[in-house]
Amino acid sequence: MDYRIEYIAKLFEKISKKRFENYVVSRLWHKLSDNEIEFVPQQYVKRNETKYALTDLYLPQIGLHIEINEPAHNANEERILADTIRNQEITKKTKHNLWIIDFSIIDPNNKSKLILKSIEEINDDIDELVMFIKSEIARKRQDNTFRPWAHQNDFNPDYHIQKGYLDADENPSFRTIEDICKLFSAKEPKRGFLRKGGVHNPSNKEHFIWWPSEENKLWNNRITEDSSIIYEKHNEPEICLTHIKGVIKENGTRVVFYKNTDILGFKFYRFKGIFVIDHDQSNIENGIVWKRIEKYIKL
Amino acid sequence: MDYRIEYIAKLFEKISKKRFENYVVSRLWHKLSDNEIEFVPQQYVKRNETKYALTDLYLPQIGLHIEINEPAHNANEERILADTIRNQEITKKTKHNLWIIDFSIIDPNNKSKLILKSIEEINDDIDELVMFIKSEIARKRQDNTFRPWAHQNDFNPDYHIQKGYLDADENPSFRTIEDICKLFSAKEPKRGFLRKGGVHNPSNKEHFIWWPSEENKLWNNRITEDSSIIYEKHNEPEICLTHIKGVIKENGTRVVFYKNTDILGFKFYRFKGIFVIDHDQSNIENGIVWKRIEKYIKL
Repeated sequence: MDYRIEYIAKLFEKISKKRFENYVVSRLWHKLSDNEIEFVPQQYVKRNETKYALTDLYLPQIGLHIEINEPAHNANEERILADTIRNQEITKKTKHNLWIIDFSIIDPNNKSKLILKSIEEINDDIDELVMFIKSEIARKRQDNTFRPWAHQNDFNPDYHIQKGYLDADENPSFRTIEDICKLFSAKEPKRGFLRKGGVHNPSNKEHFIWWPSEENKLWNNRITEDSSIIYEKHNEPEICLTHIKGVIKENGTRVVFYKNTDILGFKFYRFKGIFVIDHDQSNIENGIVWKRIEKYIKL
Repeated sequence: MDYRIEYIAKLFEKISKKRFENYVVSRLWHKLSDNEIEFVPQQYVKRNETKYALTDLYLPQIGLHIEINEPAHNANEERILADTIRNQEITKKTKHNLWIIDFSIIDPNNKSKLILKSIEEINDDIDELVMFIKSEIARKRQDNTFRPWAHQNDFNPDYHIQKGYLDADENPSFRTIEDICKLFSAKEPKRGFLRKGGVHNPSNKEHFIWWPSEENKLWNNRITEDSSIIYEKHNEPEICLTHIKGVIKENGTRVVFYKNTDILGFKFYRFKGIFVIDHDQSNIENGIVWKRIEKYIKL
């Protein structure tokens, strides 16, 4: 099935309990009516060393966060103040724009009273945001800096083989291990609980094609926010040590497809580049530390 | 809060688990972008003496039912046949139109295979339906036969007082007992568990203003589909008998605001007209039977 309709339908379902948020997000999607625009719900944003925020909707292609304030949201002055600080931190930290849709405003004649907007006012507010997004997207398309969201081809290994390369900056993503193996004409490993975490690249013996996951219970793997370093560590201290010794001895090079699950439950293997061991950092504490040496690989 | 946005947001929430249906309904609503069009989910339709159907969406102002078939819907030939029969019965019985949105089609080259539509195809299908609805509504507006959905004024007693009458054919509906009393300048009865079910009309002593409900646990009230007859019966046989005797003796006239809760949980008191006792039909079995003598009342 078309990934995009599955994704958007799941997104609406996910936020359906917040029904005014759902009204705004569904109106944005349908009024934009542009299947190349990516919608990300609950975008994580680091505010400072200790705090983070989740913005209601994020449009990564134009760096726009959208906050939707339900009818009772503005009832409390402390909350309004806290929001202002939070939103300033978000825009300062991310350098992104932040757009707010309010379902109510404070009565200018009586500051303890809220005025709820009519459906006409809400629709006008959303339609104004639609216009802004359309103009931002049009500008990006004109500059040739717009990267369309989830084209059918994006997940198709044949398309990438024909293109001749993978570039981590383009975020190539695949839906199955079978598809990864196809990229390199490698033989898919057997399925099952102890399925291998990678295969050798038949056309380059130095390269091990690897698909680590953060969700494997035996392993404690993680990747840095900029995707430049991967920590690979077995949870059992004894196995961990044996593993480290073995991998360091091998001293291989890894072509990484990092597996993650997005907030809507879709799983992807995302190409992150070519990694080698960082011998200085690898130890029993950190596990094996892999550092990126290339974002690009020829197919 | 604006009833219309509350209603539509609740409607989306109600159908959110059926995510492809939700996608279609939300797109219809936002692309129509016409706050005067009424959307009714799960419309009850009597197919024949024993069977009924619930259509996914109904637009009463133009008599249009919409069925949304999720991706796997057409996987089974028996189901397709049963659907065809059902849909023919619906259109025959109601004389309404029925429009179907399919997420898949049967492969013409291999009848056991389904072809899933792309997001572009789905959107085109919905947009075609949007065009049809827009043209039907435009035609009704031109003929002056279009009755806008839920205008803010509709629930406002002052608006009806100014207009000078209530007509059951226009389905005037009110949200509180307070609003009903205001229509007749009647004093609102005290609140509480044993709140009175009506008040006397101060400007017409013959009239008792009555707001029966189907949801009262002590009473077994119901109204016929055409709203012309109301059955009023207490659940306790002893009280039932005393009640019948008392009411028959009084032999009054009732101005009825029938309370019901719609499928989304909104409660309304709907004006049904002026009713008197049907002495032939009233008995311990039926309870008091009220028959309508007028659909219209001057205010």
